[in-house]
Amino acid sequence: MDQNPELAQQITAKVVERMERSKTQIPIGVSNRHAHLSQDHWDVLFGKDTQPRKFRAVKQPGFWAAYETIKIEGPKGEVNNIRLVAPHRPKTQIEISKTDASVLGLRPPVRDSGQLDGSAPVRIIGPKGTIEIKEGLIIARRHIHFHPLEAQAMGVKDGEVVRVRAGTGGPRALIFEDVLIRVSDKFSLELHLDTDEANAAWVKSGDIVNIC
Amino acid sequence: MDQNPELAQQITAKVVERMERSKTQIPIGVSNRHAHLSQDHWDVLFGKDTQPRKFRAVKQPGFWAAYETIKIEGPKGEVNNIRLVAPHRPKTQIEISKTDASVLGLRPPVRDSGQLDGSAPVRIIGPKGTIEIKEGLIIARRHIHFHPLEAQAMGVKDGEVVRVRAGTGGPRALIFEDVLIRVSDKFSLELHLDTDEANAAWVKSGDIVNIC
Repeated sequence: MDQNPELAQQITAKVVERMERSKTQIPIGVSNRHAHLSQDHWDVLFGKDTQPRKFRAVKQPGFWAAYETIKIEGPKGEVNNIRLVAPHRPKTQIEISKTDASVLGLRPPVRDSGQLDGSAPVRIIGPKGTIEIKEGLIIARRHIHFHPLEAQAMGVKDGEVVRVRAGTGGPRALIFEDVLIRVSDKFSLELHLDTDEANAAWVKSGDIVNIC
Repeated sequence: MDQNPELAQQITAKVVERMERSKTQIPIGVSNRHAHLSQDHWDVLFGKDTQPRKFRAVKQPGFWAAYETIKIEGPKGEVNNIRLVAPHRPKTQIEISKTDASVLGLRPPVRDSGQLDGSAPVRIIGPKGTIEIKEGLIIARRHIHFHPLEAQAMGVKDGEVVRVRAGTGGPRALIFEDVLIRVSDKFSLELHLDTDEANAAWVKSGDIVNIC
């Protein structure tokens, strides 16, 4: 190190950046199973000339959970009460846990939201009709939402992956590898996990994690 | 280090031990929800003068899964098809996932098998009767079974805790902290996870993990 002050400086800067990251308190948001429908699919499942009704806000700005729910069916079983998130999207996307997938007897892949090519098929049942979609069923990849200002302060970039320590002090502490960072001025700082991941780490919405 | 050859030796020995540990391939056994009943509870739920019938062996020597299943109920819902593991035990113990606990609306603690003091109450329904137990519902603490010879080879002791890297190369790699080591000449090398933990790491029975 004495012979290489430049390297020492680089390492020091990296260590300082890591210390800064690891100090930041990141709240968890646990995503329960939910569905985004296309307008066409809504029309079949709930009827044309009807609209979803707002149940409550979700943290992602502009979106809200609806009173309406759907049922989905696979070869082994069904999962009820999958809440719709509105407004509608161009393509139907249903996000479930691996536990749900086992109940259904289906094998959806782990995917980033919107990456639906080759995802799993499923039958959707609404009060007014039934649809078989060829793809759209996924298990959401865990990720952290950052506002650009937060990302800048912590020295992270959109698309980067980090490690996250969760459940520290509890009975099931663990480190999630490969946690994707998503940066958008519509986001605020939050780690999104599904119910299997939250249960495995013994954490719930609002609990704090750190990048490590 | 030059001034302290003893310390250097200790560190080297520790590093060699860690390298040895991390090379050993440990298979996963995923535990689905299941129940051990006391004889008294069996009698009420299934009827005196009846016996559980063997469905298949489980990896733990001397125990087997029965054809018989029970249903359990909590304030929010019920969970069906909880398979019995025989032979009976002195105390009834029901092991479920946190996902199941959410369905039931109950809050069982994470516990080592047999540590039932102050665990959760639950209502058990069998074909011949119903029981309310005051305690016995738990979420099993993850652990690794070692035969004494395997434990000796890896330099680990009963009751020690280690870190385990799981799901490497998959979409949800993670590191489980605080994994308990259990050593018994009735055990063979296996990491026991519940379904939430297996789903969070995207692993299944027979997949390989390493201590890290």
